[in-house]
Amino acid sequence: MKSDLDRLMSERNLDGLWVTGPGMHNPAMSYFTGLAPLTRADLVKARGQEPVLYYYPMERDNAIATGLRTKNINDYDPLRLLREARGNRARAMAARLKLSFEELGLHGRVGVYGTVDASLPLAVAKEVHAHMPEVTLVGEGEDTLLIAARATKDEAEIERIRQVGRATTAVVARTAEYLITRRVRGDTLLREDGQVLTVRDVKAHIAAWCMEQGLEDSEGVIFAIGRDGGVPHSTGKPNDPIRLGQPIVFDFFPQEIGGGYFYDITRTWCLGHAPKEVEQLHTQVQAAYNVAFDSFTPGMLCRYAQRRVCEYFEAQGHPTLLSNTTTEVGYVHTLGHGVGLNIHESPNFADVEQNNERLEPGMVFTLEPGLYYPERGMGVRLEDTLLIGRDARIEVLAEYPMDLVLPMRKASRASASRAKSAPRRPAQPAARTTKRAARKSTRPTGRAKPRRR
Amino acid sequence: MKSDLDRLMSERNLDGLWVTGPGMHNPAMSYFTGLAPLTRADLVKARGQEPVLYYYPMERDNAIATGLRTKNINDYDPLRLLREARGNRARAMAARLKLSFEELGLHGRVGVYGTVDASLPLAVAKEVHAHMPEVTLVGEGEDTLLIAARATKDEAEIERIRQVGRATTAVVARTAEYLITRRVRGDTLLREDGQVLTVRDVKAHIAAWCMEQGLEDSEGVIFAIGRDGGVPHSTGKPNDPIRLGQPIVFDFFPQEIGGGYFYDITRTWCLGHAPKEVEQLHTQVQAAYNVAFDSFTPGMLCRYAQRRVCEYFEAQGHPTLLSNTTTEVGYVHTLGHGVGLNIHESPNFADVEQNNERLEPGMVFTLEPGLYYPERGMGVRLEDTLLIGRDARIEVLAEYPMDLVLPMRKASRASASRAKSAPRRPAQPAARTTKRAARKSTRPTGRAKPRRR
Repeated sequence: MKSDLDRLMSERNLDGLWVTGPGMHNPAMSYFTGLAPLTRADLVKARGQEPVLYYYPMERDNAIATGLRTKNINDYDPLRLLREARGNRARAMAARLKLSFEELGLHGRVGVYGTVDASLPLAVAKEVHAHMPEVTLVGEGEDTLLIAARATKDEAEIERIRQVGRATTAVVARTAEYLITRRVRGDTLLREDGQVLTVRDVKAHIAAWCMEQGLEDSEGVIFAIGRDGGVPHSTGKPNDPIRLGQPIVFDFFPQEIGGGYFYDITRTWCLGHAPKEVEQLHTQVQAAYNVAFDSFTPGMLCRYAQRRVCEYFEAQGHPTLLSNTTTEVGYVHTLGHGVGLNIHESPNFADVEQNNERLEPGMVFTLEPGLYYPERGMGVRLEDTLLIGRDARIEVLAEYPMDLVLPMRKASRASASRAKSAPRRPAQPAARTTKRAARKSTRPTGRAKPRRR
Repeated sequence: MKSDLDRLMSERNLDGLWVTGPGMHNPAMSYFTGLAPLTRADLVKARGQEPVLYYYPMERDNAIATGLRTKNINDYDPLRLLREARGNRARAMAARLKLSFEELGLHGRVGVYGTVDASLPLAVAKEVHAHMPEVTLVGEGEDTLLIAARATKDEAEIERIRQVGRATTAVVARTAEYLITRRVRGDTLLREDGQVLTVRDVKAHIAAWCMEQGLEDSEGVIFAIGRDGGVPHSTGKPNDPIRLGQPIVFDFFPQEIGGGYFYDITRTWCLGHAPKEVEQLHTQVQAAYNVAFDSFTPGMLCRYAQRRVCEYFEAQGHPTLLSNTTTEVGYVHTLGHGVGLNIHESPNFADVEQNNERLEPGMVFTLEPGLYYPERGMGVRLEDTLLIGRDARIEVLAEYPMDLVLPMRKASRASASRAKSAPRRPAQPAARTTKRAARKSTRPTGRAKPRRR
């Protein structure tokens, strides 16, 4: 959380933080500025001090609206600095940083953050090295102080993610409702105009529903059928027709418009009916979900959950990363990832000895076991976004049924106008708050219980 | 253009390029991969060789669809590398780069690019420095080789920007149509439901029309009224009502969905009627547009056009950056910027001696003079995106009228249903292809000709 910043700076021996880049689609900056529309800004925090946002005067309104301490970049006469640097913009930037660092009494080790072209920090660091010997710009790779701070969310952040979750599952529900109310010719679903319904059509509807919900599908929804669902990040072939009885992996991870908080959910659906072998995979994946869910406790090593799931799947006869680090069939990825201003952030669940990340209260992360057999024309993944509460309870932030089979409605009830009606909200308990309740409600109704070890 | 890469690498003494990060919203990567949905990938180009795209196996379909030479990152067993690096991901990444550089026979100076968190390249460069002495990772700041290559567009890129321009002006036209068909109470426009029409409402419509046109308004449209229009990047207050006779700066710069090519246009509108002093500014800004447009020739220094416009505005009594580098009233910014996969890219028009950029055939850039007087409650900006063709002709890539005053339609004709009709396309010449024609058609019809010097 933000309140951890000074402590983390001490632990990492950092005297300051420099965050640069735009105000939107820049997690490190947005963490401080909200989603202020800033083409470009700098934020500097000296340890023990409030951060200062440096803005260009054309954007003074947007900067001041953040409520942060602010300073106009024009006060440093950047055009003069650029002239003095003979047009070398990295040098001019370093000269301006020098002035602001001096004002803040900041020297020593300064961490560098912000979504920008990789060439910029390398060039500025070189100039700082040459012209500001009292400062070292530090790169922390991917496991940065800000990633560490952001791994636990405060109440305001959790509420935002919960809201995104509600909007996200509303779109998922609407997608399901749309699909099950289509007319069918042979085994193929039809659009309102009688043409074959394709992946492209479904995605266009999802995009429209996103916008209505204030969501941005910035990373590209996965709606992958059959064999494509067996390749985890295959996003689906636009021209693929939607057919009854084929497994569809629908992995949907929109964010607040402008680059804000994400939510992440995956369901695997078969319309009308499901092949036996897909049903079997679905049952096993759901059981793996429960194995992991039940294992989560504050303080546990994240990699331990990954190992538990690998062991469960291997006991069912599936290859996993545990015995083959490069397998492309079976269980081929890690169990989940933190979710916040990045779709993938801390914690991570990689089962390597050096992964010492532990589950902590306030963490928001996905749980997403899956099984993949592209050559057999199928993949199954089930994913929710979970919170470990301050009270140690594990909570799915936005509930949604896990059913594999979506029964089609009678054709007579299918009409274009139905698709525009309010999204069908599943009737179910309002919120899962205990682990026991959770395990129960993740089981599909009317299906064999997953085998428990 | 891409065909310049090897030449530019020689000129800059670079033996290789390393591009990293996601496939979308990452100009350096998208330049090579199109808009392939890749969570994360690497692309390496050795001088004189075709680039190689390194992908994670979960995304093999998306990678292979780019048509590039590809290689599966799993071939390097990244989990083993991570273990060997004791969980240090930057070190594991450097180790993997070492393997691929060796395969390509690449050593020496390698430029680094890609939209990623700034901490990553700094950390990887440190590891490369420590473990791969035969390679130096080079940061070029903001004036990178890829920015230089991308400053001129090939035919396919121009066609894409032209398409985005068509879609963009269709949304602008639809916005105008929507506004002029609103009912009015006093001097305030009303929504369909009789409530006061606000900036927020207009932006919601613009977002919907964007989606219909396949556009993404990723950077946040400016729809700023009165005083806010006098602060160039103020995006407008959501609750501001839309009123007759108030100047509205509408600066709209969407891109292809997923982080593709941008288009950029600004119009300043008064609904119904315009105050005299806004009319005067508008006339002067339009004249400045013509001064600059007429000055453009292949080979000219970009900064020269900025200087011409400053001199013109100063002759009209306005402060500019020419005489006061930090002025916040009058003409407070540069004349334009390149447009491509970034909204701001090369060429730049800053009037500093070290800015040696020259206009070249194939460049696409904005022309956007403006005058700003926030304390007097007004700002005026006019902007188009231009191309210098191979034949040296200057072309506005998507024409749209520059009228200040949008006359309101009769209230009786205003209805909600009209807003859903096809966008009004302005009746005007199909394409401006000569400078003379251009100058003419940018003049507002029925208005005093701008004073010529």
